[in-house]
Formats: sequence, C-alpha cells, structure tokens
Amino acid sequence: MTTSPNNTEDVAWERFCGLMTVDLTAVGDNYRRLTSETRGREVAAVVKANAYGLGAARVAPALARAGARKFFVAQLDEGIALRPVLDAVQTGCDIFVLNGLVPGAAAEYPLHNLQPVLNSLGEVEAWQRFIADRKTPPPAALHIDTGMNRLGLSPRELDVLADTPERLRGVLLSYLLSHLACADELGEAKNTQQRIAFVAALRRLPAVPASLANSSGIFLGHDYHFDLARPGAALYGVNPTPSRPNPMLQVLRLQGKILQIREIDAPQTVGYGAAHRARGPMRVATVSVGYADGFFRALSNKAKAWIGDDMVPVVGRVSMDLITVDVTAAPPGVAVVGAWVDLLAPKDGLDSLAETAGTIGYEVLTALGPRYHRVYRDH
Amino acid sequence: MTTSPNNTEDVAWERFCGLMTVDLTAVGDNYRRLTSETRGREVAAVVKANAYGLGAARVAPALARAGARKFFVAQLDEGIALRPVLDAVQTGCDIFVLNGLVPGAAAEYPLHNLQPVLNSLGEVEAWQRFIADRKTPPPAALHIDTGMNRLGLSPRELDVLADTPERLRGVLLSYLLSHLACADELGEAKNTQQRIAFVAALRRLPAVPASLANSSGIFLGHDYHFDLARPGAALYGVNPTPSRPNPMLQVLRLQGKILQIREIDAPQTVGYGAAHRARGPMRVATVSVGYADGFFRALSNKAKAWIGDDMVPVVGRVSMDLITVDVTAAPPGVAVVGAWVDLLAPKDGLDSLAETAGTIGYEVLTALGPRYHRVYRDH
Repeated sequence: MTTSPNNTEDVAWERFCGLMTVDLTAVGDNYRRLTSETRGREVAAVVKANAYGLGAARVAPALARAGARKFFVAQLDEGIALRPVLDAVQTGCDIFVLNGLVPGAAAEYPLHNLQPVLNSLGEVEAWQRFIADRKTPPPAALHIDTGMNRLGLSPRELDVLADTPERLRGVLLSYLLSHLACADELGEAKNTQQRIAFVAALRRLPAVPASLANSSGIFLGHDYHFDLARPGAALYGVNPTPSRPNPMLQVLRLQGKILQIREIDAPQTVGYGAAHRARGPMRVATVSVGYADGFFRALSNKAKAWIGDDMVPVVGRVSMDLITVDVTAAPPGVAVVGAWVDLLAPKDGLDSLAETAGTIGYEVLTALGPRYHRVYRDH
Repeated sequence: MTTSPNNTEDVAWERFCGLMTVDLTAVGDNYRRLTSETRGREVAAVVKANAYGLGAARVAPALARAGARKFFVAQLDEGIALRPVLDAVQTGCDIFVLNGLVPGAAAEYPLHNLQPVLNSLGEVEAWQRFIADRKTPPPAALHIDTGMNRLGLSPRELDVLADTPERLRGVLLSYLLSHLACADELGEAKNTQQRIAFVAALRRLPAVPASLANSSGIFLGHDYHFDLARPGAALYGVNPTPSRPNPMLQVLRLQGKILQIREIDAPQTVGYGAAHRARGPMRVATVSVGYADGFFRALSNKAKAWIGDDMVPVVGRVSMDLITVDVTAAPPGVAVVGAWVDLLAPKDGLDSLAETAGTIGYEVLTALGPRYHRVYRDH
C-alpha cells in the first residue's frame, strides 16, 4: 500500500475512503507553546495510547525534534514499542511507564531502558527487591496520590514510606509525580489542595525533581510547574483551558469521501431506524466514514460536516461504515461523488465534535479507527 | 511478543494489561444457528470493520470452516486484505465490497478477486466501461435501495435501469441486494414495505439470486431469506432479536487487570472531576482499561464489572487508560493486585454494556482498542 510520510502527491487516493491528516509542525508548535508557558521548566510529552491515537511512531519523533526529552506512556508494551522509535532520532530520551510496575515483568524495564512509575508501596518493594542484585540501579519515578484516588501512594502509604526511609534504600528515584483531578476547572479548590499536599509530600521524601501538571495544570500558573510538566492532550490540539479560547493549534484533519448522492423527498426517511425524516426535497450524500472509524454513533442526527466552507449537517443514524449528510445547501458542483468531506470544523473542530458527542476531545482522538489512511505533514 | 492462537498457556500474561478472548467455536456455532434459521438458504458472513473489531484474519477462516463461502466487507482495502486470508484456508470464496466501486480503482477488484456491490447508475456505467474490453467479465453485485436511502439504486435509477436494459449489457450480475432499515423491530411496517419493494425490483431486472436479510432480518421469517442472508452482528454475539432472549452465543470476553487496590473513606472523591464521592469506607481497585481501549467514557459511574461471580460497579470517570471499580463487596482475597476483572457480564454482556453506554453492541465491538492482547479459542 502506498504511504506518503511528508506529502500527499504519491498516495493512491482512490483507494482510500477516510483520510486522517496529522500536522506534525503544529504538534511541535504546541510543544513550544507549552514550554513558553512553563517559563523554562522542562516539558515532557505524554504519548500514551499511541500518542492519543495519532500515531506515536510519527508523533514522538516530531516532539523530540521540538525539544522533548522525557516521554510518558501508560503501559509497558507501549514503552517497549516506543524505545527504538525514539532511539532512532534522538539519544538520551527517558520513557516513563505511568501504569507502573507490572508484576513479574520488572526485568523488562531496564532491558528496554524504561522507567516504571512506582504507584504503591508494593511496587516500591518489588522494585527494591528487583534491583538489589544489580551494580547500578536503574532509575524509577514515584507517584504520590494527592486526591485522584486512582494510582499512586495513598496518604497512609506515604506516611509509611516517610517513616521508614530504608524502604527506598538503593532505589534511584528520578522524579516524584502526582496527578491533578480537576486541572481543567480554573479556580477549583481541589487544585490548590492537591498542590499543597504535593509540596508537603515532597518535603517528607528524598529531594528529587518533581512533576505535577498535565496539559490543563500548565495553565493554572507557575506554582504548578515544578521541574517537569507532562502535557498530552494540549499537544494534540485539545483546549487545555475549556473556559477560554483554545491557545493550541489544531493538529488533526479528518475527511471522508462522498460515495453517492441521492435526491429524496418527504415523507422518505434516511438510514437505520428510519431516524431522519425528510421535510421536503433534499440532497443526501453518503460518506464513507462510520462509527467503526470512531465517528461515534452518539453523533447521529447531530454532528456537522463541511464541504469546503459549506457546513453540511449529518442526518440519520451514524452507521458502522457510513454517514449521511444533508448537502442540499451546498453548491451541486461541490457535493459530488468522490469529493472529500471534512468531519472536523477548521479551528476548534476536535473539542466541538466531542461536545456534540457528549464527551471530550481526548476520546475523539483515541477512538480514531484503523481504516483512515494516515498522512503526516511536516512543513 | 508471545502470541497464543489456541490456548493461553504460553502467554506472557504479566506483560498484558487488557485481554480480549474471542471464542471462534462460538462464532462457528452462531453461523450454523443462522443457517438452520434460514432453512437451507445460503448464509454469507459480514466481516467488515475487521470482523466487527474481533480480527478478520482469525474470524473469517473460522467462518469458512463453519461453511461460509460468501463474505462481505465495507471497503476495498478490507477486501484486499481478506483475499489471501481466505485463499489460505478455503478455495472458491466470494468477497463482496459493500461500499461499491471506488472511482478510478475498478481494476483492483478483479485483480484481488473481489466483487464490487454497484450502488448507483454511475457505478454501473463505470463498471460496464471497465469490463468492456475484457474477454470474461468479472462478476459484480447490484444494490437496490428499498428505503434505507443510504446506498443503492434509488427508485428513479431503478426505473432507468429497468427501461434501458442495455445499461447492463455485458455486466455479469451475481446478486441483487437490498438492505433493511428497521429489521431489529419486529412488526415494523417498513420491513414489509422494503420486502415488497425488493420483490417488485427483482421482477424488473435480470433473474439472478437475491439477498436482503441482515442478522435481524433472518429472524423476520422465511420470506426475508431469499437466496442469501448476510448476517454480521449476530455471528459475533449481538442479539438480533432485541425484544426476545438472545439466540446467539456470546463470543467475546474482555478483561482488565487490577493494578492497585486502595482503601478510601468519605469525603474522598475518585477520579477526574472528583466525579465519585465515597459515602463511607470503600475499597477501590484501579483497573488497566480505559476509553482508549473502547471502554466508553459514557460508562463512567455506570458500568458493572465482575471478579469471578462478584459484580463490582465502576465508580468515577472512565479515564484514558484506567477505570476504578468499587470492590468493597468482593472477598479481599479475590480483589487483589494482578487479578483479572471481567468487563462483560457472562451471558449477555455485550448488549447490556452497550445499553449502559447508550449505544448498540455493534459499536462496543468496533470500538475495541488495539492494546488488548487478543487470544482466540477454538475447542
């Protein structure tokens, strides 16, 4: 199959029904934008879930070129896949595995030059046991829970660790981490509480660099930046400040192809469950993208699409491989078989599509299906 | 990476955080169940969208072993990928591409021994032009729209085709198809209307075999079976008769792993947005599956999970890589780090999870993410 990393000239377009274009230059610009926001504090890149569905194999190297040297994944397997990708473009990158030390798999981390983020006393113990017989202990990060109650040492576990420092004997800690539960809500008291709890925890543990802020946390102010920020979503165009205009560049373009145009008239219905009833003569385009591609069924009869500058509403139910779009208002010469339809609005399409579907931009990204042909642009 | 096609003994379990088990024997049994329902009429297998997310490379051969000889995909690329998979296990299988003739790519169909489902007069014309200079015309199917208004010849186009038979000159038609819009609603008048319209259309066109019924259509009665039924969802365990008990076997098992257990107490909150507030002492398990794995964010604070026979509710928001589950009621020796948690109820889990998420089993299947380790069972 023809692939086209940096331009689209040599793609056999006719073969592809869905097109996903990732603007790697915008990813790099977003990274630099966040670096300027943290005023010199280091900024890592979270590339878990295949770089939020955009393709870690292309996105992570672009982030390394923009200056990122610390990378976060969720799972061990993601780290194992990412290591050779980064090593091919940049020496000295650290990769952290957020979901922690998988029982029985400790040896895999140093083998692939990955750092587990230790999430519990049990993991600290297992790691200490594992590194006991090694000359140079491989580094690991430690996650302190400050109110998320999901992963990380609980307050009780923190007490135990602070009171028995020998539990960390021999352990080479690279970072102390915590994670914010409500960072996207400016003025939420929980943010301050978590920051204060984190500072208090840092004082009780060995002095190593600290990291708290996710994408939204970066915009809560310099107090939240510590030594390393860990944005993910904002790098990929999700608005980290939902109550204000999006400071990030849109990274993603999604397109489907018109397979067929039909003229229908009242009282005809469109699609499954006869879910859309024509109120008069209308032109309907059937477009080659469906919920199997991550265009949620919840967008049925709600989402908008675009042909050039013309907004064309999605009508009827989203089906597995197809959507139907009311192109009555589009010029006939534009809405034709073979034409591409944009599924995201030009500027803030990711977040607005998410809102229409009742979810967040993160889920729109990670739901992107495997049938899109991926094109990466780098100006 | 270790893979284990038919048993699970040699899997490096510790590496995997999510496990997806596909019961190929159940797929075959479901196929035979549908064949018995159609009383001898041929039954095809719809394996579009990577066999509804379950893996066409394993599912399609299992269906061929169960007797399927006709396969349907949505897109040209899916057909191209499926052809060598089927040829390796069974000669003489036909593959139909439902989304039709991709403009400019006609030559790809005979090259890969695929049949386009012609969806419009334009596609019929393009196909006729393409085959004009070939000694033996490759076969194609023709789709008549009988009220779905999505793909297929409109009534107006049918009139034109019936009145000008030369438009089909040289075209070797294998099947006439149509698709039901409301087949899952027993007694819906539209089903009868579509069947009658289909029969009327068949009378006006060359006498070739006909196909109307999808999974649910098979259960509308023998009138709907024609020469070939085309089930998809029912093969994979979705209930084709939503108002009655599911006649199909469950095919899918989904499991996540407990990464951490924590004791929390009121007034603590769990997860993003502090979306779940503890009402008293509770034990929370953090499980290694999230919306990036297709466990929809819409399931936040709603879904159920199982540890053995114990139901454990999902609490807090589903995050990208993790869910949190209230395991207070589970025996402490059972809900432990490293234990597997079932994400689907034992018998009708697929449809009930879908209902909880406000969608259908089809979307649960096609949303399954790439991070699950896939295990295929064949008894």
